[in-house]
Amino acid sequence: MRDVSIIGIGQTPVGEHWERSLRHLAYDAVKAAMGDAGVERADALYVGNMLSGEISGQSHLGPLIADFAGLRGIEAVKVEGACGSGAAAVRMGYLAVASGLQDIVICAAVEKMTDDVGNRLTSGLAQAADADYELIHGISFVALNALLMQRYMYEYDVSHEDFAGFAINAHANAVGNPNAMFRRAITLEAFTKAGMIADPINLLDSSPMADGAAAVILCPAPQAREFTDNGVRIAGSAMATDSLSIHDRHDPMWLQAAQDSAERAYRQAGVGPDDIDLFELHDAFSIMSALSLEATGFAARGKGWQLAANGDIRPDGRIPVCTMGGLKARGHPVGATGIYQIVEAAQQLRGEAGDCQILNARLAMAQNIGGSGATIVTHILERE
Amino acid sequence: MRDVSIIGIGQTPVGEHWERSLRHLAYDAVKAAMGDAGVERADALYVGNMLSGEISGQSHLGPLIADFAGLRGIEAVKVEGACGSGAAAVRMGYLAVASGLQDIVICAAVEKMTDDVGNRLTSGLAQAADADYELIHGISFVALNALLMQRYMYEYDVSHEDFAGFAINAHANAVGNPNAMFRRAITLEAFTKAGMIADPINLLDSSPMADGAAAVILCPAPQAREFTDNGVRIAGSAMATDSLSIHDRHDPMWLQAAQDSAERAYRQAGVGPDDIDLFELHDAFSIMSALSLEATGFAARGKGWQLAANGDIRPDGRIPVCTMGGLKARGHPVGATGIYQIVEAAQQLRGEAGDCQILNARLAMAQNIGGSGATIVTHILERE
Repeated sequence: MRDVSIIGIGQTPVGEHWERSLRHLAYDAVKAAMGDAGVERADALYVGNMLSGEISGQSHLGPLIADFAGLRGIEAVKVEGACGSGAAAVRMGYLAVASGLQDIVICAAVEKMTDDVGNRLTSGLAQAADADYELIHGISFVALNALLMQRYMYEYDVSHEDFAGFAINAHANAVGNPNAMFRRAITLEAFTKAGMIADPINLLDSSPMADGAAAVILCPAPQAREFTDNGVRIAGSAMATDSLSIHDRHDPMWLQAAQDSAERAYRQAGVGPDDIDLFELHDAFSIMSALSLEATGFAARGKGWQLAANGDIRPDGRIPVCTMGGLKARGHPVGATGIYQIVEAAQQLRGEAGDCQILNARLAMAQNIGGSGATIVTHILERE
Repeated sequence: MRDVSIIGIGQTPVGEHWERSLRHLAYDAVKAAMGDAGVERADALYVGNMLSGEISGQSHLGPLIADFAGLRGIEAVKVEGACGSGAAAVRMGYLAVASGLQDIVICAAVEKMTDDVGNRLTSGLAQAADADYELIHGISFVALNALLMQRYMYEYDVSHEDFAGFAINAHANAVGNPNAMFRRAITLEAFTKAGMIADPINLLDSSPMADGAAAVILCPAPQAREFTDNGVRIAGSAMATDSLSIHDRHDPMWLQAAQDSAERAYRQAGVGPDDIDLFELHDAFSIMSALSLEATGFAARGKGWQLAANGDIRPDGRIPVCTMGGLKARGHPVGATGIYQIVEAAQQLRGEAGDCQILNARLAMAQNIGGSGATIVTHILERE
């Protein structure tokens, strides 16, 4: 296989883009990434998206976005792994470049969650869970996560307030990110008093739905210098899966696919958790942050919440997390989130994270989760 | 890159499977292919599907099918390119094996079009077209193809009856295929008198919606002999795209992506149209057969219909087409069709096509089309 580098990154601000359609958002991100890389063509485009069929009545995004970006004719296809779709598209692009069959590859992801004329957002998101064995009971996706959080609090004798550090850190970090949806800090009091959504998950445990698109340009690592002095090598790339149904798992409190994909990525990169300088994890809900930190080796079982409580996840802490605001405050355009995480990790490694910059960042990890842990994609990026 | 072979194939009969759900159909095909290859594990699963969200309220098929097939944990993701999803999944599997990162890869595709409780089939299929510029006028997918056929008949002075040979050949071939949906021959009179759907497309110009699943197992070509004496090498693999909207194309009568992907596949395989022993083309509608034959070099522009009229596409003709019944008579479970085509091509090359067998078949081509020509994936398979 060939080694692969990221030579260009692009993103739209995350938010409610009433004046931009699905294809326009994707165009903005793809063009920004191509401009950043200084390329005017590409061999292939892999598109991450979850909800375009449900919300916009539009599938078949591969050729649509390739054409709209002025790249008519190239290999182009959509990749779907629920909220893990974005990083899954990067994984496919990685395979394409690694194979030697494609040289310049665009991985783009887009989600347009506003303009939901059919009122199908909640049912669309729920399709990430098992339709026959979970959804049939009428449960929503936030309710599934609430069950996980309830169980976690019971098993490990943790209070709701113990999770506050995740949201507080994310909001504090988003202040410095011009592309974030919520650029305002929150207090512990605001967290504890936020309105309940599905007990114990309240509004500030939850990432907001949003519109947005992000893109990266990949090429063979030996060629990266031809395009940029600021290349970022993909040192590790891995995808693992688990059952869709939470009740089918050996241990509902353990994200096995997070462990599996992280271990594969660590092994490929030849590093361990102690070597990682920042971690863009998938904080769709507070509980996911705790479980992700445990399964990837940053905290012992049942202790993930402590890293938030004691400040370890802050920019000056042991393992800075969600350094640009995370899903919680940057916003969570579901199928696009995985590429936002990778773009932000690359910004950090390139020293272009502005007020969010982590000093001397050399190795960054990004972990994108689909469903309640059924698809987990982990990438480790290294400054070149 | 590593060369790639198909070491296992599996399929369910195509039809109305009221007693089998989406996941059961996929399971049947995956298990059949694994049994055929003699493998009990795999490194990755790429799933082609178009409509599971619309019809079954279930996305996130990668982990769902991996888990249900006893492969929990492996890399697994869905690939979507409308009706071209099946071959697109094979293309992703091909990249994964070629890269050297995965060894044993399953490419499976499934579609469950019955049990359409929300009555969303027509709108779901239409999502392959451009929602903002085509569907907004209320056009359905068959109507888009009817516009193409009308224009073709006008431009080239061809009658509706001139297309009859495509359906007659497909139905005659399906008689010998135990997995085909319609195992009965049809007459010219039946074709000309069939009920009109969208003028000039009548019932026998149209492939039927259906349930079904198909799968192939890929491995590095040098290892194929460890599994089978009946390996099939993927000599060429290519995907190309075009605009979703027909009105945006330079020439609506030309499938540019069929030409582009076929030319890339020919070049990779080092062959041309004259070397191909059989061609599983995408006869979703009669007009697509004619356009596909022209764009891939088997007929001159405007002359594709002649190959049907003069018998060239029959099993004993110059270029046997849809040798197991094609979409028209084997049936068209949309997102699964691309892998049915590849499985059938492999059956021919392995000499296992039974009553459908093309004598001395050495090179087979399969071409899968998404939308009205926006995603086109071409594979050339070679007997090892």
